[in-house]
Amino acid sequence: MQIICRLSRKIFSKYLIAASVRNMSKCTVAVCQFTATNNKAANLKTVKTLVGQAKEKHAKIAFLPEASDFIASNKKEARELAESINGDLMNDYKLIAKNNSMWLSIGGFHEKVDEDTIYNSHILLDSSGEIKSIYRKIHLFDVAIPEKNIYLRESDLNVGGSQIFPPSGTPAGLMGLAICYDLRFPELAILQTKMGAQILTYPSAFTHSTGEAHWEVLLRARAIENQCYVVAAAQFGKHNPKRTSYGQAMIIDPWGKILAECPKYTGEADTNERIAIADIDLDYLKKVRQEMPVQQHRRNDIYDLSIINCESASIDDDETFKFADKVVPGSTVFLRSKYCYAFTNIRCVVPGHVLITTYRPAPRLVDLTQHEIADLFQVTVNVQRKMEIEHKSTSSTICVQDGPFAGQTVAQVHVHILPRKEGDFQRNDDIYHQLAKHDRDENPQPLRTPQEMTQEAKKLRRYFM
Amino acid sequence: MQIICRLSRKIFSKYLIAASVRNMSKCTVAVCQFTATNNKAANLKTVKTLVGQAKEKHAKIAFLPEASDFIASNKKEARELAESINGDLMNDYKLIAKNNSMWLSIGGFHEKVDEDTIYNSHILLDSSGEIKSIYRKIHLFDVAIPEKNIYLRESDLNVGGSQIFPPSGTPAGLMGLAICYDLRFPELAILQTKMGAQILTYPSAFTHSTGEAHWEVLLRARAIENQCYVVAAAQFGKHNPKRTSYGQAMIIDPWGKILAECPKYTGEADTNERIAIADIDLDYLKKVRQEMPVQQHRRNDIYDLSIINCESASIDDDETFKFADKVVPGSTVFLRSKYCYAFTNIRCVVPGHVLITTYRPAPRLVDLTQHEIADLFQVTVNVQRKMEIEHKSTSSTICVQDGPFAGQTVAQVHVHILPRKEGDFQRNDDIYHQLAKHDRDENPQPLRTPQEMTQEAKKLRRYFM
Amino acid sequence: MQIICRLSRKIFSKYLIAASVRNMSKCTVAVCQFTATNNKAANLKTVKTLVGQAKEKHAKIAFLPEASDFIASNKKEARELAESINGDLMNDYKLIAKNNSMWLSIGGFHEKVDEDTIYNSHILLDSSGEIKSIYRKIHLFDVAIPEKNIYLRESDLNVGGSQIFPPSGTPAGLMGLAICYDLRFPELAILQTKMGAQILTYPSAFTHSTGEAHWEVLLRARAIENQCYVVAAAQFGKHNPKRTSYGQAMIIDPWGKILAECPKYTGEADTNERIAIADIDLDYLKKVRQEMPVQQHRRNDIYDLSIINCESASIDDDETFKFADKVVPGSTVFLRSKYCYAFTNIRCVVPGHVLITTYRPAPRLVDLTQHEIADLFQVTVNVQRKMEIEHKSTSSTICVQDGPFAGQTVAQVHVHILPRKEGDFQRNDDIYHQLAKHDRDENPQPLRTPQEMTQEAKKLRRYFM
Amino acid sequence: MQIICRLSRKIFSKYLIAASVRNMSKCTVAVCQFTATNNKAANLKTVKTLVGQAKEKHAKIAFLPEASDFIASNKKEARELAESINGDLMNDYKLIAKNNSMWLSIGGFHEKVDEDTIYNSHILLDSSGEIKSIYRKIHLFDVAIPEKNIYLRESDLNVGGSQIFPPSGTPAGLMGLAICYDLRFPELAILQTKMGAQILTYPSAFTHSTGEAHWEVLLRARAIENQCYVVAAAQFGKHNPKRTSYGQAMIIDPWGKILAECPKYTGEADTNERIAIADIDLDYLKKVRQEMPVQQHRRNDIYDLSIINCESASIDDDETFKFADKVVPGSTVFLRSKYCYAFTNIRCVVPGHVLITTYRPAPRLVDLTQHEIADLFQVTVNVQRKMEIEHKSTSSTICVQDGPFAGQTVAQVHVHILPRKEGDFQRNDDIYHQLAKHDRDENPQPLRTPQEMTQEAKKLRRYFM
Repeated sequence: MQIICRLSRKIFSKYLIAASVRNMSKCTVAVCQFTATNNKAANLKTVKTLVGQAKEKHAKIAFLPEASDFIASNKKEARELAESINGDLMNDYKLIAKNNSMWLSIGGFHEKVDEDTIYNSHILLDSSGEIKSIYRKIHLFDVAIPEKNIYLRESDLNVGGSQIFPPSGTPAGLMGLAICYDLRFPELAILQTKMGAQILTYPSAFTHSTGEAHWEVLLRARAIENQCYVVAAAQFGKHNPKRTSYGQAMIIDPWGKILAECPKYTGEADTNERIAIADIDLDYLKKVRQEMPVQQHRRNDIYDLSIINCESASIDDDETFKFADKVVPGSTVFLRSKYCYAFTNIRCVVPGHVLITTYRPAPRLVDLTQHEIADLFQVTVNVQRKMEIEHKSTSSTICVQDGPFAGQTVAQVHVHILPRKEGDFQRNDDIYHQLAKHDRDENPQPLRTPQEMTQEAKKLRRYFM
Repeated sequence: MQIICRLSRKIFSKYLIAASVRNMSKCTVAVCQFTATNNKAANLKTVKTLVGQAKEKHAKIAFLPEASDFIASNKKEARELAESINGDLMNDYKLIAKNNSMWLSIGGFHEKVDEDTIYNSHILLDSSGEIKSIYRKIHLFDVAIPEKNIYLRESDLNVGGSQIFPPSGTPAGLMGLAICYDLRFPELAILQTKMGAQILTYPSAFTHSTGEAHWEVLLRARAIENQCYVVAAAQFGKHNPKRTSYGQAMIIDPWGKILAECPKYTGEADTNERIAIADIDLDYLKKVRQEMPVQQHRRNDIYDLSIINCESASIDDDETFKFADKVVPGSTVFLRSKYCYAFTNIRCVVPGHVLITTYRPAPRLVDLTQHEIADLFQVTVNVQRKMEIEHKSTSSTICVQDGPFAGQTVAQVHVHILPRKEGDFQRNDDIYHQLAKHDRDENPQPLRTPQEMTQEAKKLRRYFM
Repeated sequence: MQIICRLSRKIFSKYLIAASVRNMSKCTVAVCQFTATNNKAANLKTVKTLVGQAKEKHAKIAFLPEASDFIASNKKEARELAESINGDLMNDYKLIAKNNSMWLSIGGFHEKVDEDTIYNSHILLDSSGEIKSIYRKIHLFDVAIPEKNIYLRESDLNVGGSQIFPPSGTPAGLMGLAICYDLRFPELAILQTKMGAQILTYPSAFTHSTGEAHWEVLLRARAIENQCYVVAAAQFGKHNPKRTSYGQAMIIDPWGKILAECPKYTGEADTNERIAIADIDLDYLKKVRQEMPVQQHRRNDIYDLSIINCESASIDDDETFKFADKVVPGSTVFLRSKYCYAFTNIRCVVPGHVLITTYRPAPRLVDLTQHEIADLFQVTVNVQRKMEIEHKSTSSTICVQDGPFAGQTVAQVHVHILPRKEGDFQRNDDIYHQLAKHDRDENPQPLRTPQEMTQEAKKLRRYFM
Repeated sequence: MQIICRLSRKIFSKYLIAASVRNMSKCTVAVCQFTATNNKAANLKTVKTLVGQAKEKHAKIAFLPEASDFIASNKKEARELAESINGDLMNDYKLIAKNNSMWLSIGGFHEKVDEDTIYNSHILLDSSGEIKSIYRKIHLFDVAIPEKNIYLRESDLNVGGSQIFPPSGTPAGLMGLAICYDLRFPELAILQTKMGAQILTYPSAFTHSTGEAHWEVLLRARAIENQCYVVAAAQFGKHNPKRTSYGQAMIIDPWGKILAECPKYTGEADTNERIAIADIDLDYLKKVRQEMPVQQHRRNDIYDLSIINCESASIDDDETFKFADKVVPGSTVFLRSKYCYAFTNIRCVVPGHVLITTYRPAPRLVDLTQHEIADLFQVTVNVQRKMEIEHKSTSSTICVQDGPFAGQTVAQVHVHILPRKEGDFQRNDDIYHQLAKHDRDENPQPLRTPQEMTQEAKKLRRYFM
């Protein structure tokens, strides 16, 4: 029996309550910058040094950049180097925190959950070395320009997170966790601010070209529009022959002023380990917000920005689900919502061909309630997004064969999701030929084993954790 | 310029306010029963006689059965006999009401809107002969049992209504309008009661066999569970060689007691014109509801029964809509919701092949907001239902070709609805072959003219009025 | 640590899957009628006898009436006689089922959960004596007519259930469970039918007067409109000097025909133990539904009937919740929804004065998203309903003091619910005087202890299980 | 009969279709900067000169700053100077556009609708001088810091807009309209981009201090995160002794690079009329978006940003609404939603005391459906926001007296909204004393005349147009 383990609401509220820890108005923090490589031991040693420097400067929190654990030369190496949050490296970090009595923002940690699953996680340790919060990066950088044959995919290595958590209480104030590319999406920062954030964090490994063009501007904009402190640790310089980072770690105040910063990478020789120090002053933050009450001017009556990440329910492998006269084992289900569930398919017309149906055995779409229709297709689109990532696809066929003359063979409403690729069928419409025969005897696709279906479901569940 | 003319909210609130007319606690009403034929003049004469009898008995409202205007021998004849509510027959009814100073419930009137459109309408006239309310029957009796080659279709003649209105104020109390087959759907009566109804009405033409088995039981159940008076006028006896009605028009009190009734048809000779008289006593109704407060015990926290019929917006033929880089003329649009519109197609893979898209030009499903996804597919299913009625279909293919490799040729999310019939394609999947080629040069379907598309849209709009 | 134990989704899906057990087309069932008293042993003996008779007639399921365990003379006695479903009496029932290899519908069992909590539960045992499903009656009969000083309250003894489950698979078909007064609410039966029910059950103890007026009519109507078999076991005759039941247990077919019935109570001497036997024939049911496809004619595009009972989330007593700068212990929280939680109050202006707030610490209503506003007040009304039952109230003050000049003292949006009674304040508005002072120093109400608050929360959680 | 005239969907779709005008890939535009004063004629002359310069440089669109019509010395003067969009000044602008064959973005025009109503409107004229789009600034700058006795209120002069429209098609591309302070709210720009915007516009009159700290950063951030061109016209220098603007009008490309800019104000003498010229290159924009597909990486499955501004329905003064046994004239209604309406009060406990109720006459909150509860309180909060603006309030009492013992006197659910001020009652709770007596004989507040109620409703409707 395996139960999908989402970062649970219990943790959620633990964070919340942590938030109420009384903070002093002022708190010194240190933002760090260095040049991580594929040498984990060396990186760790650098981290120790930096935290020691922060300690000397009376900082209470040290912020480390994305990929503080390592920057690998390639994905294969990255997979090998990645560790669990219960592994040795995290223990070392915990010791550093404890020994220095220092909160530690580990801005990016390759969090290995199983062989298939690495999250890019921002982990917050308190001064006793305990994990206070984990944020798994939700915006991954994938580019597919078929015309130009360009396919860059962070998601080849990492699985995207699926949840936004409330900010965590720290000695410096309520802190929202984010990572690098998240910076380009104002929604995340606004939502964190709406949940009380006073400090936004963007540990990063910006490339040199985008760093030069966007780094400072975006960081300052997030500070100004949210009236938050922004702390942005950064990778710096040449990690390996193929990869260079921009640097310029900085701390910005809620008025948008840079309080402290480390140098940018200019290609010249430089001691790569740097910290910059500043005070987080919540009284000042309060004053800024009071004098320009931007947050109160949001027009929630005209536009609505909400978090919708808490819908999915846990799945027990031992459960069974009804699908007309068939039985769907819980182990092949990979997402549950209020009215629907998604499961892997016994015959796949294309790889990644999955199904969504309702708990209630309604034969046809017109039999569904308005709530069910909404949920069914919201879940469909949510799943479709993940199937396209999993299968490196940029198109999908979404289809309901509603009624016997439309090719429906199981008399319970279900949506087919088929991730598509260029030329995946000789004639584009052959997919429908296959789909129409999907559950019939003449079906040419082999029946998959329960093991295969379970294995695929397990893999897909990672996208909803 | 033609604007879809829904029974407007203006009328809606006029009815509402009519409701506040102060009623005396007791009011005599008369329920009528007779044998309509295809002789409109004879039927009208009978109505006059019945209303005269009601007048003699001091009734303030006379209730006429469904199809009081006529019962035709066949659908062709029905189409010929049907009139507009601005026609001669309605004027005659108005005169009868006015001359007798009698409210008139015309329980079923073949309301001809244009050559293609007849609604089965229950029309309420006040004692000055003015129309106070119009209800268009929403539940039509269609049966399709392909296995047995049975296809009975009220919708071959009538278009189903699409709105439930608040009850109307009358001298006897707040009256909810329904017709015949509606009786089998408790939701309608409950919703009317929730809107304040004190009297439920089921003017009918029940067949003899269903009448014997269900008529009295269902009428009494509606009275009991809603704690309303029920007034059910009825057709009676042999209308023509093929059609016989059950009779037994009755008035039931809110405790479920039959206060008055006309005879059932037994096949024997009988004077077919009958009325039955009873008093509507709102003090008694109040007492029943107070002593058993059933309506207050509804568990609105567990189940939710709502009216959702007010979604659609008016369409102006002169408007234009954006569909990626194309322009969709308003005249080809037949339904608008908050976020979406449905329009007829320039090329149809099957008859009734229509499209739904969003106002906002989002290229792919994942670009839609949660509200848009919900609305898009709720509208899709709503339209699908009507397309199947229009095209006598029992299946539909619902498909989104989402992205270029899935066959998407217009870069704005759109749902294809294709009503399906048995054997409509040689191989069931040939439909997809056509669909995949839908907007391409090799497309074999002819381009339709704007006139054809506009004509179809006009026809489809009838289903949403 | 105590976790609210709802009848979980796991059970939900177990039932569902049970539903797919292959049934023979025909199955004999027996409906029972007898006169329960406060003598549990005697009642049990009667049940044994009746089940034995059912066995002889080759029934596969025996249906027992509501209150088969006992009918007490007063509420105090009822509290004493009630047992847990893990108690001796249930064990005896299980043995009866097992020994007779008979499914048993125990139509009403006083299910004692703790000293404060008795549900009126319909429990289904399979032929091995295992519990297959539990339904807790959701419609309780409470009447309050202050003008007449009438206060009848089933809820003084029983707590209302809060969930509708899918029908259970049995040898006779998919069976929806209900109890007695539920019969008056067509929504429940329709929802069960939408979830697949083929058999509706109304074990009852109808009073003689309502039985005579409504029993047969309502049962037949439910059969006809849902095209289901209806099985209605019944209490019969004189249970004690104050209470008499109507009898006439019956089995009805999907066309509304009574297949078998026991006698009505007429006041005359009668052997009180009776069974009636009939066959459930799913082929016949299928034929009825095919020939008059009522279920397919539901206008889900116009009205929407949905189950909304699965919203609440489990609560862990060890959790803590943020409330501006305060901490709310999980043990004082009694309901959680997606965005909100409800908790007991440290100072109560009136008994039952509770609070609802959002997880997100938004200071004012205008800071909430549309989803949060909807959820906050849907939860408020849900809680209000239960507080009025708990406090025997027929009115409530619902109030948000939004902003400091409106008396807000905790800077996080929260709704006050105050159950009201006639004359609960000298001047009606004194309640607001108290409310305005609610969290201030001058507040005259005593601070409650954590124990009191936890105790009240525990009691309130019963309403959401 | 007066019907609320919202900027209609008709205009909405006209804009949409305008969007499909084929643009050349490159188009020269001119951004303007000058020092408007209270001399309208002089300002107009300057505008003519600037447009002439733009024409010389082959610009196709000239962008004028906020308050191009005038910057008054005080609000009284502003009210006097403001004109209707049908007035002389707009005619002059139209002529300038036509004579120069130049599109004109009039970045801020004091749009006078009636004596009470001025919107801060951004108006787009095409090269024939026709109005293509009107955007009314939705974010007004109001500050209330009671502790410091600071009350700055743009809303004393202007009424906030209530709608976001799709971008307009122009020769340079699809253009989203905004004004000045809107720049601080990323939601607006993101929504415009989601609707297709390629150019974002922020005509402004930034103060010197905020301009220096935030102007360039925020403009560049909007360009970068939305991958849009940003065109920001600006007021510059000293308008009158009390007001100075920052200047630095600029054009930014989708990568965030400043293409052209006018000088900042430094206090030194300067020719105040300036234009800056740049090319809008949609091919470049396409390239930027393709290489970094930020818009496709939005996690619509985790957060949901939607426009919700189209809910309100038109109101006809001649309609009447039911409120239990009372009649509410349409002329006193100022907002309608799907299920609810808001209306002015015959007795006001405080100024701005208004009511919201449902169309359906449900007596109590528990009688409402889930949809109705959600809508009722969403409308309540929407109205509350506007009442606080209208009455310069920072707090509100929101109250439902639900049931007779809670002080309910009209037996239909209704929410009271009462804008509150410091010390508005001797004892804070006296408001409830008044509220409790609200509809009773002892009520001390005078009955208001229908004229007063209608007048107030008319004033309030401005907030929803």
